[in-house]
Amino acid sequence: MASPAICDRNNRNDGENGSWSMGLCGKVMNKVVEFPIKLKKLGQDDPRRVVHSLKVGLAVLLVSLLYYVQPFYNGLGDTTMWAVITVVVVFEFSVGATLGRGLNRILATFLAGALGFGVHHLASISGEIGHPILIGIFVFLLAASVTFIRFFPRMKARFDYGLLIFILTFCLISVSGYREEEILEMAHKRVSTILIGAFTAVFVCIFICPVWAGDDLHNLVANNIEKLGSFLEGFGDEYFKVAGNGESNRAHLQGYTSVLNSKQSEETQANFARWEPRHGKFRYRHPWRHYLKIGNLNQQCAYRIETLNGYLNSEIQTPLNIQSNKVQELCMKMSSESGKALKELAWALKTMTEPCAAASSHITKSRAAANNLTSMFRTSAAAAAGEGGYQVRLQDMVPAVTVASLLSDVVAYAEQIEKSIQELASFPHVQFKSAEPKTLQSCNTSSSNVGPHHVITMDRLASLQVQEPHKEIGTKLQRVSSAI
Amino acid sequence: MASPAICDRNNRNDGENGSWSMGLCGKVMNKVVEFPIKLKKLGQDDPRRVVHSLKVGLAVLLVSLLYYVQPFYNGLGDTTMWAVITVVVVFEFSVGATLGRGLNRILATFLAGALGFGVHHLASISGEIGHPILIGIFVFLLAASVTFIRFFPRMKARFDYGLLIFILTFCLISVSGYREEEILEMAHKRVSTILIGAFTAVFVCIFICPVWAGDDLHNLVANNIEKLGSFLEGFGDEYFKVAGNGESNRAHLQGYTSVLNSKQSEETQANFARWEPRHGKFRYRHPWRHYLKIGNLNQQCAYRIETLNGYLNSEIQTPLNIQSNKVQELCMKMSSESGKALKELAWALKTMTEPCAAASSHITKSRAAANNLTSMFRTSAAAAAGEGGYQVRLQDMVPAVTVASLLSDVVAYAEQIEKSIQELASFPHVQFKSAEPKTLQSCNTSSSNVGPHHVITMDRLASLQVQEPHKEIGTKLQRVSSAI
Repeated sequence: MASPAICDRNNRNDGENGSWSMGLCGKVMNKVVEFPIKLKKLGQDDPRRVVHSLKVGLAVLLVSLLYYVQPFYNGLGDTTMWAVITVVVVFEFSVGATLGRGLNRILATFLAGALGFGVHHLASISGEIGHPILIGIFVFLLAASVTFIRFFPRMKARFDYGLLIFILTFCLISVSGYREEEILEMAHKRVSTILIGAFTAVFVCIFICPVWAGDDLHNLVANNIEKLGSFLEGFGDEYFKVAGNGESNRAHLQGYTSVLNSKQSEETQANFARWEPRHGKFRYRHPWRHYLKIGNLNQQCAYRIETLNGYLNSEIQTPLNIQSNKVQELCMKMSSESGKALKELAWALKTMTEPCAAASSHITKSRAAANNLTSMFRTSAAAAAGEGGYQVRLQDMVPAVTVASLLSDVVAYAEQIEKSIQELASFPHVQFKSAEPKTLQSCNTSSSNVGPHHVITMDRLASLQVQEPHKEIGTKLQRVSSAI
Repeated sequence: MASPAICDRNNRNDGENGSWSMGLCGKVMNKVVEFPIKLKKLGQDDPRRVVHSLKVGLAVLLVSLLYYVQPFYNGLGDTTMWAVITVVVVFEFSVGATLGRGLNRILATFLAGALGFGVHHLASISGEIGHPILIGIFVFLLAASVTFIRFFPRMKARFDYGLLIFILTFCLISVSGYREEEILEMAHKRVSTILIGAFTAVFVCIFICPVWAGDDLHNLVANNIEKLGSFLEGFGDEYFKVAGNGESNRAHLQGYTSVLNSKQSEETQANFARWEPRHGKFRYRHPWRHYLKIGNLNQQCAYRIETLNGYLNSEIQTPLNIQSNKVQELCMKMSSESGKALKELAWALKTMTEPCAAASSHITKSRAAANNLTSMFRTSAAAAAGEGGYQVRLQDMVPAVTVASLLSDVVAYAEQIEKSIQELASFPHVQFKSAEPKTLQSCNTSSSNVGPHHVITMDRLASLQVQEPHKEIGTKLQRVSSAI
């Protein structure tokens, strides 16, 4: 519910004269007209949503048919509804989530059913007065203690639904006014229907266009690395206005913002992925938790990039008045090289290919630029007196120094991301393809597929390497470029 | 499931000789011994968890008694179980969440029940063969379309549970093999029991130690501002090692990290809070969404602080070799003053008092220091030649300039946070107490309650103001300090 003050403001923004006359009716009409457009967009954003909805419809339909198959209905009777309930409640978007909920439901129903039956038996032999008192005490204690256990972060992550169903089933069985024979028959029927429901849900979920939480996590982390890379590739040109086409590129750079808050969804996906059997490229016991480590590095890197982005944004910014070409060149190099490295790493992770030499060489180049900048700062006092065209003007340097310093952090994170991807590749249950000559070629192609102005940048950077005053780094770079 | 490689590494870290001999048995024993300690910690961290668990136990017990109250049981029979199911499923930690789920359940049951009855009637008049076909088509279409609607972010946030129950109830009613009279009786009983269950849950939730999602959101945002303030207050001393006691303070500064990822929980709480009636300081239509705006600024500020924190961390750091006292002093001032300002703002928000003059004066001081630093950088070329004791040594300046630049961003965010809190206070449904002289006094006291070394910092800062070369800012500061 938006507060009226906000509503008023929005309305005023809509246009001073038009919006008020439109009134409530027009707004409702607008909503009605917009609805199918929004629906279409929702489906286009991720077509798997449409497939998932049809799958849920199918699973519910299948399980509803039990009512019309006489042998089933005669055997199960009204408890057939538990199959419908189970399908609706258990069917989730990804296989991991569905399996998790299904297993939670089945296990919890079994355990709580057995415990409830025991308590019901104990109560029924303790006389007319003892019966409700004993049941009351057990119900209270169990509901309270299991609710408390649900607060454990680990239990909440994996068994929250199971614990809920545990309380539910325990209460239903132990409290019920049935005789013991009735309970056994009811339990038998209910467990059967729940099994039928859970299996229907899991079957439809796995065998018709399955959505694997593991795949999603893998792609999410790889895409996040790519988004960071895209920002860094474009940042240098945008900040130093080399591209010269102003605003147009800036919106293009904002992809990284989704990385800032992806921790929660990564953790959720990792928890779901652990329920999944081996599939596609992923074996059983794939180290899903390691993705959280890479994801964490991504976020750390994204925080720095968010700060860097503040320097593109004119609202909160130190004055931009760059004059020193050398610093500019090195910053652009750090940015574009680390960006390219991250894109290569994203590609390697996505295709599960060992990070190819191109990634390492980009990392080395960006590190070299960072070191170069540091040593340039070290010798700056001398340079200020000596070299022409490069003067220490502190006011001009402030934003550049900050950007350089932040980029240096980003380079360090790119190195750590590379390391952690290599660590992932070295896990015993993980198989990364080795970067064969053919793959390597495609890997190089992917790095040159970044559009014409990046090629220009690379050429310019290459020419910079020749001018480099620090011989050691120059040699290092030549060694690296010959290795590509 | 930790991967074996990680397990091995952990074991090795436990101590080369001891841990292997301990074996599985020892580990299980350890877990068993640790369990009560963890339980105790969980309760101590938030005692409301214990109360909530007892409340759930009580609500389930109350609703179970229906089985033993003969008139109820005779009237409702087996459908009594729906009361138990409703309590277990609807009862959530906060009032908002419980109300939201309860209303969702009741509304969805009504609507889906009516629709299901209509479809059942339509099918029953369409003959033996038409009946299952028509029901099948309706069930498939409704389950698929409602599942798709659940993907709308807005629907997911507020009505996800309702939509689930809608599918469930519709299928149960329309598919069931009952005659129409039976359905009407069943529907009547089920709606009654669901109402009883929902009201029991809501009653216990509201009238026994209620946990308001609105309060939680309010406190979360205020505490987050305070955490940022605490970091900034301590950062200057820690970075420039004035306190001199090395590592001890660093852990104390890490409170802000929780701010980085609090967006999700803020959004969840805001959604719950919108279900809540007026309570405590909050009227109906309190602008909960505005807290998300403040929260967003907090996160933006936290990203900068995270970057700043990287400069405390030795792993990823530009070399620290600060010699220029002036920059150091101004940085410390920016940091500590903006920290104090944020703490005052947190206090003002928490107690819903209009931000007192102290907050503004701290903001003004930190802004003055930032401007001062900028103008110092502007005149630095001249200063380098003229003034003694302050020389431009670029290498030494790099980390300081970066830190100064980041702190300048942080000051800008502190200003924005102040503005948005004032904006919150100006909403028509919000009542902030005006900062009366008495409140102002306590406000000032709260800022001086920060321990002895902060007092030293303040004294030192006060003495710095006198030495300030820029007369205009000096006068401004004197004006400000006289206003406190």
